[in-house]
Amino acid sequence: MNELEIVDRLRRLSSPSKGMVLGIGDDCAIYRPRANEELLFTTDQMIEDVHFTRAQSAASIGERALARSLSDIAAMGGEPRFCLVALAAAEPKWILNFYRGLLRLAKRTGTALAGGDLASSKKIHCDVMVCGSAHRGKALRRDGARTGDSIFVSGPLGKAWDRRIEPRLALGQKLRGLATACIDLSDGLSLDLHRLCMASGVAAEIDRVPVMRGASIERALRGGEDYELLFTLPESATAPRGVTCIGRILRGKPGTMHFQGRPLEPRGYDHFRKKS
Amino acid sequence: MNELEIVDRLRRLSSPSKGMVLGIGDDCAIYRPRANEELLFTTDQMIEDVHFTRAQSAASIGERALARSLSDIAAMGGEPRFCLVALAAAEPKWILNFYRGLLRLAKRTGTALAGGDLASSKKIHCDVMVCGSAHRGKALRRDGARTGDSIFVSGPLGKAWDRRIEPRLALGQKLRGLATACIDLSDGLSLDLHRLCMASGVAAEIDRVPVMRGASIERALRGGEDYELLFTLPESATAPRGVTCIGRILRGKPGTMHFQGRPLEPRGYDHFRKKS
Repeated sequence: MNELEIVDRLRRLSSPSKGMVLGIGDDCAIYRPRANEELLFTTDQMIEDVHFTRAQSAASIGERALARSLSDIAAMGGEPRFCLVALAAAEPKWILNFYRGLLRLAKRTGTALAGGDLASSKKIHCDVMVCGSAHRGKALRRDGARTGDSIFVSGPLGKAWDRRIEPRLALGQKLRGLATACIDLSDGLSLDLHRLCMASGVAAEIDRVPVMRGASIERALRGGEDYELLFTLPESATAPRGVTCIGRILRGKPGTMHFQGRPLEPRGYDHFRKKS
Repeated sequence: MNELEIVDRLRRLSSPSKGMVLGIGDDCAIYRPRANEELLFTTDQMIEDVHFTRAQSAASIGERALARSLSDIAAMGGEPRFCLVALAAAEPKWILNFYRGLLRLAKRTGTALAGGDLASSKKIHCDVMVCGSAHRGKALRRDGARTGDSIFVSGPLGKAWDRRIEPRLALGQKLRGLATACIDLSDGLSLDLHRLCMASGVAAEIDRVPVMRGASIERALRGGEDYELLFTLPESATAPRGVTCIGRILRGKPGTMHFQGRPLEPRGYDHFRKKS
């Protein structure tokens, strides 16, 4: 199977979506925005032996690659529109299975495969860019948390790194106009909460954290790859069902955090920490 | 230097652009489209020892990574708006130099750095997504070539693979409303002309090809990485200055091509040919 044949198969597997004027098969994909639409963009890499191993199925890696970027769209309260997929791998069969997994999740979430790039490489590397949509000025951001807000997470933390990711798209969309700030937990609670606090210019205290069965509190605080939403609500707001209040936003030196009365340092997954 | 510090430096190096509501520093970048705007999307990978070697400077690799995607925007007649850069590399210093080269070209072409993803990897891998802009319905496509059209290229072919790429953005924009079809030459003239012919449902004959000094005609026909524009104009149109007419579009079995009277097979760079 050559490159053209692989791309041709992918074109047949992908489905059209709102706003896509032109999908796979030209130099660029074309998207026609609607009135009052703002577009959200994010991209995430998955690298063999860093983010996954060859022991996992190609389909599960494809699904995860898309899910990680969809989680960023969820954190902004967006609706997915389309994705571009850059993939470097060696086996046409592996590539098609990767796309099967990715396209299953794409279909379920209304994400069109609009294009991408394919290259041959021994070590597998992929990068998935997702474009999402939000009404003008309605996207959730990190910088709106205010003193007195309550802090929530969407589910238990400390997940195993290879656990299936369910991007919290429906919750993110519900939080539009409700949450003052939102971020997805990709690098660990302590690091991502610190980012939210720095962006909002506030401090935070955490009372308790819902911990995944079998995980330690340390892993729940510092482990990455949870892909739950961390968000803040004003005291007056009613929280959506199924989320857990873990603490509150305080006045104080921006980024200062406490867990059960003790200082909490922002430490999580940092690709370059060993090099610092 | 850790990941946060690298990202912080990049944020200070990047410049704002029209339409960007939010750049580096949240889960997603936010772009606010203008009325009657259509958005063009493309992504291209560069992999160490496939597309470049470590002997080249980090800055030249960064520039090339962006230039390849900008060439796709040029081929659609678009104006660059912003890019997302996914980079896997090991050395913070190398990373910053890569971005210096990339950002120099970004600044010169009005492309904002809106975000991306950074990971640590021994083998360098990057993927650059560019978003461009065109007026509704005005983007150039591959599928509009008609019998009798003349075929042009924007410069000499057969370039060395490590030669600097100058994306033909100004020419692409000039061709809007003039060219019937356009594609950028990334995989070799015979393969890219074949794609244009297949998309348009036409055949083609080539009389002559401008060859880069020192290159063979074989390389000009089949070598990749030229990044010139290949386009078609109706007989009545006046060609822009500096381009070369190389042949014409014929009625015939779609994709049939001849060079100086002999059949021309579509063969160029295919990442997966050896695996077929």
